[in-house]
Order: sequence, then structure tokens, then C-alpha cells
Amino acid sequence: MDPEAKIVELGLELPVAPPAAGNYLPYVQVGNVLHLSGTISMRDGEMTHVGQVGAAQTVESGYESARICALNALANIKAAVGSLSKIRRIIFVGGYVNGVSGFADSPAVINGASDLFVGVLGEAGRHARAAVAVAGLPKNSTVEIQVIAEVET
Amino acid sequence: MDPEAKIVELGLELPVAPPAAGNYLPYVQVGNVLHLSGTISMRDGEMTHVGQVGAAQTVESGYESARICALNALANIKAAVGSLSKIRRIIFVGGYVNGVSGFADSPAVINGASDLFVGVLGEAGRHARAAVAVAGLPKNSTVEIQVIAEVET
Amino acid sequence: MDPEAKIVELGLELPVAPPAAGNYLPYVQVGNVLHLSGTISMRDGEMTHVGQVGAAQTVESGYESARICALNALANIKAAVGSLSKIRRIIFVGGYVNGVSGFADSPAVINGASDLFVGVLGEAGRHARAAVAVAGLPKNSTVEIQVIAEVET
Repeated sequence: MDPEAKIVELGLELPVAPPAAGNYLPYVQVGNVLHLSGTISMRDGEMTHVGQVGAAQTVESGYESARICALNALANIKAAVGSLSKIRRIIFVGGYVNGVSGFADSPAVINGASDLFVGVLGEAGRHARAAVAVAGLPKNSTVEIQVIAEVET
Repeated sequence: MDPEAKIVELGLELPVAPPAAGNYLPYVQVGNVLHLSGTISMRDGEMTHVGQVGAAQTVESGYESARICALNALANIKAAVGSLSKIRRIIFVGGYVNGVSGFADSPAVINGASDLFVGVLGEAGRHARAAVAVAGLPKNSTVEIQVIAEVET
Repeated sequence: MDPEAKIVELGLELPVAPPAAGNYLPYVQVGNVLHLSGTISMRDGEMTHVGQVGAAQTVESGYESARICALNALANIKAAVGSLSKIRRIIFVGGYVNGVSGFADSPAVINGASDLFVGVLGEAGRHARAAVAVAGLPKNSTVEIQVIAEVET
């Protein structure tokens, strides 16, 4: 199934590619490897989830936050290569959770992104990953996702 | 010397490859480059080191924690390519220390992983690296190590 | 314009490549891709900026700290390939800000590195990026920058 159709089937929407929040590019492609900038929990220019998991947010709302970050990453991939069907695979996901000191459940939060990639892309969405809790994220986002993907050229 | 024999000579043991703690793969290979998921201080399904360096753990015990993470990364490499002797080199190590706010000694902790890679693989184990202290890690692990390696295909 | 001449024009100086702070290499090259170790705010063996943004440091001084980290990364690239003019492009910048818990302005800090790369290298300096605040950095550095670059072989 076409990945964009799958997004609709999941009751979701591919967002407009988010603007860069500084002097950087949303992606850089080297050969077939696409390095994406970190994406945060923003939709239509508004933050959807802010604050730390363990304080303002829960593991459950963090999971939703991660899913929105992942949709923004997909929007950047589409902007880069024209279509989500040109994704050969998601190689790596760096998952950063804005967490209170000692927060130990980052995998359950970052699964929001991982489940989204697998749900939309199937086997091509399965990836290696590192999930950590950090002290803070841009615009106080609850999650930030950084992706490396292999694409058709 | 064969890397696995070297592990034994060092008085250590190559663990069973750890299970993924979420919806992700332990590794993804693209050409000769193997992207590994983050590994934590777990052995036989039990955590060996939990809590933050500067509180429950010290730099010395953090060093031990990093060494166990590195052994788990080697176990994943073996699972990926069949033998540690197929490692051309460790390219990069991302070292995350579960540290109290302001913890400034992450290099001394992450040396536990770096020394292990060099001890087991010799020149092929020498790598580029970034070491940072983060707010929290999966299962409250004291260290997490994320590796990129070049392997024979 | 030659990148080193550009550094002088900007009123800056390319530092001596910093020594590794542990058992690792300053860079590893695989094909045309150069993986650099994290660099901190050190010049001539002395730290220029220590402490967290939001406490001992401000966004403005953090920006300066990030610029020094970026100069150290360029020094490592020169050490690796002989000349900054062999940089095809900066692919990715991982920007770590030593920040108080909840620090939300890491992009403004990491722009110190991004602006430096673009100022010195022009279009070749434009990169993908992830900026996060972490609990601590080596030697209490205010910023750490980790770079992946594409270079001529």
C-alpha cells in the first residue's frame, strides 16, 4: 500500500514540512542516505506537546508527541525525494525525550515514532534506534526525533 | 588474535545479543556500514548498573557499566555479520552517561567502552566518539552506547 | 574564497586541532564521509566557556561557545584531509547544550556553530542538525558539537 494512503488509513495526516528553527537545512542527502534534521512536536506552526515527561507530560502523551515528530520527519523525507514510496528503509532513529532527571522509560515514549514508521512503511520502516532522556528540547518540545533514511535516487 | 579469543583472554565473556526494548531492530546494515541500536548495561536479562553517575554510581562503576554496554554492542555485531572478525573498524561511538545535572566527567566513564573496543579489536577498535551526560536512560541504565561500525559484507 | 582566508576575514583564527580527551580518535573516515568526534569549547588547552546555559552561561555566551566548538571541528577536518577546501559539505551537526533542566532554546545556542560553518564554507557549510540540551558535558563545557562531513578523497 502507498505510504500516504496508509497514513490516511491510520486516521492521520501528513503535515506540511516544518520550517527550520535555525541556520540549518531540513535534510542533506549523500548518495542514497538522507540525513534529516531533528523534528519536534509541532503541527501547522503550533506546538502540540510541550514540557517534560514525568512532569507536564506522561508516557502516553509523550508517545503521541513522538508520533507527531515522526510524521514531521516523513514530511521532510517527502520534501527531499518527492514521495514516501521512494523510502527504501528507515536506517536509524535518534529519539530524545524531554524528561525529568532520572526518567527511565524513554523506549515507551519513542515507540510512538517507531510504531508510526512501521505502521506507515511496513518492513521498510523497521530501524535501529537509540532512545535517551535529555534535559531540554527546542521550544520545550516533549520529544525530538532525528532520522537517517535510505532512499531511491 | 581472534576477537572472541581476546575477550576470553581479558577475562570477559561475549554475552547473548540483548533483546530490543521496543519496536526497533538491533541493527540495520547499509552497504558496509552497520548502524547499531543503543545498548544498555544488561546481562542475561538483568541490569548490572542502574542509576546516575554522581548519585547511585561513581565514575569507576560507570566505567564498568560502559564496558558491559560495549560487550552487548559486540554481541549485536556478531549477530549481524556472524563473526567479530568481520569488523573492519568501529567508526563511531555515541556514549550517553546517566548523570546528575552538571556531570562533567563523561569521557572517563565512556572510556570503559572505548578501552573495551580497542582491547578486543586492536587498531580496528579505535573510533571517533561523542560523550555526553543525559537526564535519563532506558531501564535507568547507568550508560548507553550507540555504535556505527564498518564490516565485511 | 579559501575557507581559511574567510576565517581570518571573520576576525577568527583556526585553532590547533584539540587533543582527544580519552581513548578515541579525533576522526574516522569511511569513503568520502568523515565522522568527527565531539569538540568542546577549548582553545589552546584552556576551556573558554564552562557551566550550563540558564545558570553560569546565557544564550549569547552559549552561542560563542558553540562557535569555538565549530572552529575545533574545522581544525580536526583540516588535520584529517589537509585543507578546509577539501570539504564538499557539512552533512550533519549534532549540537549538545549543557543546559539547566527544561532549557528550551538550544537552537539559538547551536546557531553559533551553524552560522560559523555557513560563514566559513558558504553553501558547503549548510547542514542538517539536531540540537538538544543535555545534563552535562566533558570538562563542564557549555557546548559540544559533533559533525559528519563529506570530503574529497
